[in-house]
Amino acid sequence: MSRLAIGIDLGGTNIKGVVMDESGTCRHITRVPTEADKGGVQVLDNILSLIGILLEKEGASGSICGVGLGTPGFVDDNGVMIGGCANLPGWCGTDIYGSIKKRFGLKARAANDVTSAAYGEYRFGAGIGVHNMVCLAMGTGIGGGIVINNQLYAGTHGMAGELGHIVVETNGLQCNCGLKGCVEQYASANGVAAMARRMAVEAGISSPFGDKVIANPDAITSKDVYEYVAHNDMLAKSVHETACDMLARACGIICNAFAPDRIVLGGGLLKAGEIIVNEVKNRIPLYCWKDIANRCEVVSAKLSEDAGVMGAAAMVFE
Amino acid sequence: MSRLAIGIDLGGTNIKGVVMDESGTCRHITRVPTEADKGGVQVLDNILSLIGILLEKEGASGSICGVGLGTPGFVDDNGVMIGGCANLPGWCGTDIYGSIKKRFGLKARAANDVTSAAYGEYRFGAGIGVHNMVCLAMGTGIGGGIVINNQLYAGTHGMAGELGHIVVETNGLQCNCGLKGCVEQYASANGVAAMARRMAVEAGISSPFGDKVIANPDAITSKDVYEYVAHNDMLAKSVHETACDMLARACGIICNAFAPDRIVLGGGLLKAGEIIVNEVKNRIPLYCWKDIANRCEVVSAKLSEDAGVMGAAAMVFE
Repeated sequence: MSRLAIGIDLGGTNIKGVVMDESGTCRHITRVPTEADKGGVQVLDNILSLIGILLEKEGASGSICGVGLGTPGFVDDNGVMIGGCANLPGWCGTDIYGSIKKRFGLKARAANDVTSAAYGEYRFGAGIGVHNMVCLAMGTGIGGGIVINNQLYAGTHGMAGELGHIVVETNGLQCNCGLKGCVEQYASANGVAAMARRMAVEAGISSPFGDKVIANPDAITSKDVYEYVAHNDMLAKSVHETACDMLARACGIICNAFAPDRIVLGGGLLKAGEIIVNEVKNRIPLYCWKDIANRCEVVSAKLSEDAGVMGAAAMVFE
Repeated sequence: MSRLAIGIDLGGTNIKGVVMDESGTCRHITRVPTEADKGGVQVLDNILSLIGILLEKEGASGSICGVGLGTPGFVDDNGVMIGGCANLPGWCGTDIYGSIKKRFGLKARAANDVTSAAYGEYRFGAGIGVHNMVCLAMGTGIGGGIVINNQLYAGTHGMAGELGHIVVETNGLQCNCGLKGCVEQYASANGVAAMARRMAVEAGISSPFGDKVIANPDAITSKDVYEYVAHNDMLAKSVHETACDMLARACGIICNAFAPDRIVLGGGLLKAGEIIVNEVKNRIPLYCWKDIANRCEVVSAKLSEDAGVMGAAAMVFE
């Protein structure tokens, strides 16, 4: 009988959980609200309740060999949250492994949510068959996940993979992290929308999309940008090209540092499809050794929203 | 009886070889000329001769379990040179493992010379006791070596660790690699000397060191810069601070990407001592997450010129 694991993906709004076997088949997919505003103790309680629900649904808890969790922030080797989770007040300091062990007697493994999603892609999605893989998730910000020598690489204290904060423009846009010119300011979903707003006003590019942006700047999303890219809109194309160039600069640094077999691009922005992957792929050789770029594939993520829970569960089997 | 390995460090001028035991004790240290100008076949022949000399000196070849080689450029998984070795014409394409196996019946392992030196520091020098370490060697250029989860990380086709080509200044100085603004243009030993020449003329800083530079610009080395830093010379200090700031930018990116336990700074430039380590250490938190910087030590390399051969020999035991 195949071993089973519980995978949990802690998001800002919902907590998603599954029971998964070693082949990646998921069942009993369940969501509960995160209730982040009620503080870290409540968030932990909701996670534990979700584990309880999944164990009950599975019915034979004996076959479940552990719980994996993907969470915003940094998790140390003992499963304690040690930072990087500003959107979950009171979550820092939580002892994840201890709490799960105490309540259910199950071993636990936790990692940063993007790291965990990267591991999901590596095991069951766009990373199958490679040894060294770097994943970039372009959402609200840009997160990074790294697989090295077929293993998740979380770095010291789980802090590796902060690839959204690679500086790609000296003295560039101010980032929330304190630095200037981080790639996530240009190429995250939010960064792309913000760039459309700036360019519509500052660059003075007149186009149908520009008119839409100026009419209601706050409503613009990266999805709008790519709708207009599809119609060859000058402003939208300019935003797209700049975003991909910035992403290629970051990927160039990643290539020179890691020489991965494959870079996987994912997150909400990639709903625009292959147009982003192709543009980035073409530009990477401008920003690193060509020998390295030529040997590194660039592909889209495959698992979409399931990468997180699947990677979390897979960590238990590792 | 302790196992023994031969370690070889292939340099542009000399090839250095040792017989080393597992504790890092070296004997029979021997050098032969590289004769790079005579082409790759001659270089290989000189390496094989050196191995022959070391085997003869050791006397009981049965106890030697293999040969490790550190070489400029990229080595693929089969021990074939596949690029990055422009200073050794005809070296690209050489089958290192096959040649050593054929002549001596010994297994071989090869890696980039800086990678190999980083592994030497990890096993016997400044990296003892850590899991994840990144090494930067500031010489003619800047090379990088990476140890991850206690193992050498060479990346796909041995190409990882090109950390001297992290771009730290958008549209900065032209680098030989084709990019602009690579850290090695500012913070390698050659980069520091070149910066002194530029600043003496362009920045118009008048100082005793400036007078020396202008009198004979081509004779200036990084050693001169640090002699004058010790005397509080304005121009020399300005060069030093700029170089360390650029190095800190690269280290900030390394921290955000790898979250290493330790960054080891080595190479000719570090003969200037702790002044560089301290300046870089102070500036790294300006260029990455402070949580990561606070948990990453920055130290000087310890093994000096022996790191290469020791790391090469140690790879055989890995």
